[in-house]
Amino acid sequence: MTDRILEFLRHRREKGLDSGPCLVVDLDVVRDNYNAFAKALPDTRVFYAVKANPALEVLSLLADLGSCFDCASVVEIEQALAAGAAPDRVSFGNTIKKERDIARAFALGVRLFAVDCDAEVEKVARAAPGAKVFCRMLCDGVGAEWPLSRKFGCAPDMAPRVLEHAHRLGLEAYGLSFHVGSQQRNPRMWNGALKAAAGVFRELAERGIVLQMVNLGGGFPTRYLKRVSSVRTYGDAIFRALRRHFGNQIPETIIEPGRGMVGDAGMIEAEVVLISKKSDDDELKWVYLDIGKFNGLAETMDEMIRYPIRTDYDADPREPCVLAGPTCDSVDVLYEKEPYPLPISLEIGAKVLIEGTGAYTTTYSAVGFNGFPPLQSFVI
Amino acid sequence: MTDRILEFLRHRREKGLDSGPCLVVDLDVVRDNYNAFAKALPDTRVFYAVKANPALEVLSLLADLGSCFDCASVVEIEQALAAGAAPDRVSFGNTIKKERDIARAFALGVRLFAVDCDAEVEKVARAAPGAKVFCRMLCDGVGAEWPLSRKFGCAPDMAPRVLEHAHRLGLEAYGLSFHVGSQQRNPRMWNGALKAAAGVFRELAERGIVLQMVNLGGGFPTRYLKRVSSVRTYGDAIFRALRRHFGNQIPETIIEPGRGMVGDAGMIEAEVVLISKKSDDDELKWVYLDIGKFNGLAETMDEMIRYPIRTDYDADPREPCVLAGPTCDSVDVLYEKEPYPLPISLEIGAKVLIEGTGAYTTTYSAVGFNGFPPLQSFVI
Repeated sequence: MTDRILEFLRHRREKGLDSGPCLVVDLDVVRDNYNAFAKALPDTRVFYAVKANPALEVLSLLADLGSCFDCASVVEIEQALAAGAAPDRVSFGNTIKKERDIARAFALGVRLFAVDCDAEVEKVARAAPGAKVFCRMLCDGVGAEWPLSRKFGCAPDMAPRVLEHAHRLGLEAYGLSFHVGSQQRNPRMWNGALKAAAGVFRELAERGIVLQMVNLGGGFPTRYLKRVSSVRTYGDAIFRALRRHFGNQIPETIIEPGRGMVGDAGMIEAEVVLISKKSDDDELKWVYLDIGKFNGLAETMDEMIRYPIRTDYDADPREPCVLAGPTCDSVDVLYEKEPYPLPISLEIGAKVLIEGTGAYTTTYSAVGFNGFPPLQSFVI
Repeated sequence: MTDRILEFLRHRREKGLDSGPCLVVDLDVVRDNYNAFAKALPDTRVFYAVKANPALEVLSLLADLGSCFDCASVVEIEQALAAGAAPDRVSFGNTIKKERDIARAFALGVRLFAVDCDAEVEKVARAAPGAKVFCRMLCDGVGAEWPLSRKFGCAPDMAPRVLEHAHRLGLEAYGLSFHVGSQQRNPRMWNGALKAAAGVFRELAERGIVLQMVNLGGGFPTRYLKRVSSVRTYGDAIFRALRRHFGNQIPETIIEPGRGMVGDAGMIEAEVVLISKKSDDDELKWVYLDIGKFNGLAETMDEMIRYPIRTDYDADPREPCVLAGPTCDSVDVLYEKEPYPLPISLEIGAKVLIEGTGAYTTTYSAVGFNGFPPLQSFVI
């Protein structure tokens, strides 16, 4: 929560423009976060994960600051280019790409692609001849609040074959990537993956293929309710692990922060629509907001991300509440298994401020589920 | 799957308009479904649940057929009115409403509102004086594939007080509603709720308040992989339960089908983007489509809804596959806990047809998660 955001919201309310939940993103915080990454990992190039928040103002600021961009689709590539990034600062980081989308990215000048299997290598070889590829490896996501599945990446012992296949098909076998899990709270989690990466580097070197780059992925956390370590702590832990496994031959490195870059730059203002009990002897209150899983807070799925919530009543005593969204969908409940403590004095019509919502909110919004519009967003 | 849908898709492909996943809805099926409901429950008014699919063509057809509309928001009310429904055929069925939205609905002519607590009654009394209200009761959702939580409704023994409160505040205490759970496969599930409803009718009659209406909710299933009973079977079971609990004084009734009205009227065509294995000794293939949880198939959440999938390779032997969507989000996996049997010969680039997708697909689509556009929709 920043003074600039609070000032913006106050002004919006005074103008009578206050017509539903909205996200406000403070670019000053994004700038500070970029500089913190650049300082904590000075020899690492930053590829901002566009999917976290593709607002043009955010991308333009980061392009100006010198950031590169990790893109999940051709649309995101176009957004990064429109924000001023040259195509050599763009990575097509999705391992699942239509061949015609690879061709479109190649035509736009993109030369760096993620792969995790032979079939994807073959698509890239056909549609983006001579491009650089990095192979994504599976990685244990223990310690992450938004866990990764086996969806992306191959087993580390399969990676050499995939990269050798790329090499044979005329691509540049450029490096490896992994992802330790979004909102990863343990800075030491990069160690195991880097050990595996160093093994793949050695194995391919023995076959005459010299990899150049390790993509350290994202996973850098933003502050929600629990304290997280500083970016500096992460940078130090990663550098130590690089030294441990690569010795004096530390490769080129890339990071792909998304949540860590914009999460704490944004705050959502929402409204209490209803407070009720289900029966007279019910101990839990239900508090319904005008924002829920389908218009911005999708990451409350399985109650994984627990956002800090501020109200004007925070000096008062609290009681555990079930917190739910406004739609007629029964899964549109934010916190129920672990009820959320809210002020007993909270009233229908009150505003609530939901912090740490700069990442993974706007783009998750449904186009119009139950007729509710997507989350509005303002970048200041 | 209908011939008209297949013909439309063939034509679209021949015209080269085939640029991503799309839903095609056949209005002939919607018409048949409406007529089946009208026939199975001849004394019951149909309030189509707009949230299931608010396409203008669907709403217009249903308005012409005489349907009423269950709306979750002011936007949905406006959609129903734009499709030709008079406001006396509209119910504002969401129990969670901003007071200013109740006032807007009232100004548009809506006179029927759902409530489930005193606070909501008070909002309706202020913003829609004299309107009819029905009180939603909690109902056990056993047997439903899309389970209902305690989010909507109050305990049946609280309902008389809520309706009495409405009566005292000058509203018309009109009736009760409940919802037996979406995709409810047991036609006898209405019995217990109707028993409770009859009890509330009696209790309020003793206090001089005569309720008129029971809103039987939705829950009518559409055919996915498992066989479901006919609408007629549901109608018979409901009528028997009404007779059992209300005797000769059967109240006015309403149903709110959504999935049962449009689910089997729609089919999605999608494309296989990638097929891979995670390691050489992996037994499971991963099959990635260009549609996933964030651009149409949100109801695969927790693998709850299991859609029938057709391919051109269906004569060939099958093997269990993990089925996933195209985004860089690890939760964008459709079926993994229970892998989906797909033809061994299935290839990258092949089209797949996903049946039963007329309901709860388009409006769940994210505005642009990972840069992927929302699901396209065609109504024919």
